[in-house]
Amino acid sequence: MQAAYVLGIDVGGTAVKMAVFTEDAEMKQKWSIPTNKTNNGESILDDISASFHEMVEREGYTKDQFIGAGVGVPGFIDMEEGVIEFAVNIGWRNYPITALLSEKLGVPVRVDNDANLAAAGEFWKGAGSDVEDLILFTLGTGVGGGLIVKGDIIHGVGGMGGEIGHVTVIPEGGAPCNCGKTGCLETVSSATGMVRLAHEAAKEFPTSKLTKHYQDTGEMTTKEIFAFSADGDEAARKVVDISMYYLGLSAANIANVLNPAKIVIGGGVSAAGDDLLKPLTHYYNKYALEKVKSDSTFVLAELGNDAGVAGAAWLAKQYVTK
Amino acid sequence: MQAAYVLGIDVGGTAVKMAVFTEDAEMKQKWSIPTNKTNNGESILDDISASFHEMVEREGYTKDQFIGAGVGVPGFIDMEEGVIEFAVNIGWRNYPITALLSEKLGVPVRVDNDANLAAAGEFWKGAGSDVEDLILFTLGTGVGGGLIVKGDIIHGVGGMGGEIGHVTVIPEGGAPCNCGKTGCLETVSSATGMVRLAHEAAKEFPTSKLTKHYQDTGEMTTKEIFAFSADGDEAARKVVDISMYYLGLSAANIANVLNPAKIVIGGGVSAAGDDLLKPLTHYYNKYALEKVKSDSTFVLAELGNDAGVAGAAWLAKQYVTK
Repeated sequence: MQAAYVLGIDVGGTAVKMAVFTEDAEMKQKWSIPTNKTNNGESILDDISASFHEMVEREGYTKDQFIGAGVGVPGFIDMEEGVIEFAVNIGWRNYPITALLSEKLGVPVRVDNDANLAAAGEFWKGAGSDVEDLILFTLGTGVGGGLIVKGDIIHGVGGMGGEIGHVTVIPEGGAPCNCGKTGCLETVSSATGMVRLAHEAAKEFPTSKLTKHYQDTGEMTTKEIFAFSADGDEAARKVVDISMYYLGLSAANIANVLNPAKIVIGGGVSAAGDDLLKPLTHYYNKYALEKVKSDSTFVLAELGNDAGVAGAAWLAKQYVTK
Repeated sequence: MQAAYVLGIDVGGTAVKMAVFTEDAEMKQKWSIPTNKTNNGESILDDISASFHEMVEREGYTKDQFIGAGVGVPGFIDMEEGVIEFAVNIGWRNYPITALLSEKLGVPVRVDNDANLAAAGEFWKGAGSDVEDLILFTLGTGVGGGLIVKGDIIHGVGGMGGEIGHVTVIPEGGAPCNCGKTGCLETVSSATGMVRLAHEAAKEFPTSKLTKHYQDTGEMTTKEIFAFSADGDEAARKVVDISMYYLGLSAANIANVLNPAKIVIGGGVSAAGDDLLKPLTHYYNKYALEKVKSDSTFVLAELGNDAGVAGAAWLAKQYVTK
């Protein structure tokens, strides 16, 4: 029997990541191309296709070894119709991506939201590969995420399922969020939110090490915030405490509703590792139901930037081969 | 072809409700028997069985017209194994209900949590029969509920899915909840929670009509709280406002995660109708994402006390015929 492969594609604002996987989740090739956003991204699919065909030839594959491709895109998507309703960072609007890309690649294509596919990637071959129910929090510039329930992505009726960054955690007087609301989880538990909190803490603790470091270097990143906090600095500790308090409360409330086996923490902020997990689980344990707590484990994401292509390949395996 | 029927059974603390449905959700018979809790409920299944066989004979059915039975029980349940881990109000513990009941009834049996089955009932033939994704809030003595996603019940890894009454809405200083935590939605948006808030409001507004009514009659129910609130009484208005504020916030946060098509409000408190829905949707609209809001509609439950047996019959149709 001929080996069967799936292609995973993760379209980002600066690069399109691509990878070839076996159906058993083994990654065979990985590469990326720049995202050409000229004219609302009209050449992106041609670039993807050319790069795929060139790789097939170069690596000695034959095209009929590929059973399908999955593609992740940041934006509002009609998964069933395969249409990007709006991808603000790419420029696509009402864009029938699966029909177009499937013709160019010569294989069936399925599309989903990039945040959902990161969760699917961790579920297929990462931190959640031993469970069927997980929540992924991706802590980066914003707070993204995805929900896997009974081994499949939760989309909801309009594709908005898993918008866990926009759970309201500060109902009154919270900071404005990019979504138009205020007090969303993203405003306090993203890298951007933590840096904002650090600037507030700097006013409250003008002589703290974190504040002085910022005054001296002009630098304030979550890496520094966690490091100064671990070192006992009161300004940094307050920022970490606030940020993890709201993340723990939100995680507990989502878990009280979904009863997951794992809660996976990914994104750049998760590099803090135990310095993040310790306060996070403290607050989670305070607000989760007893059995929900004992059913769930916190783990760090394992795939890093590969989560998106892995999830996209899983999507192809899951949906286009049926 | 012979008509095919399913039996729905809803085991409650005082009565066992039973009903016969066609596979198309038409209710043919409905009756109930007392719940005999003597000796940890050891005779309940015999009572159900005797009552079923008597009904089959009396109504002129034949037993082979029944393709299966579903049973709803309040408690912790292992649905896959068909075992009641603990049903505190009934007395069952580690009770292999599907094996026992299926032998007695002579048809395959499937079990689920009664709150989940109420949601499934509204989904099958009630307020949510036109959608695939809904949230049910049952506002009674407590706040129960269930989640239907893509036409099926969300259980989570340990059967705790849908515990929406125990989402924490008052993280600090909230009232104690039966679950052992504090500040759960149930402490402010159940009938019990509203009455507790009304007693607090009575102290703050000693001359209000609600307070006087309570002093005169000793009565304080949610019916009266909503009625006095509609009449402009400041104590009652405050209670309704607090209760619906937290319910709206919770509903929005769960909807931001699950993106449902309908949010169904049931239970005794829902008798308040528009007096409840109006403040509820006001706060929901404040905290739900724009698209989540436009995708969802609030509706009152339609099946009342029949939701449980309808959901149990749906469960049988869904799972035991496959």
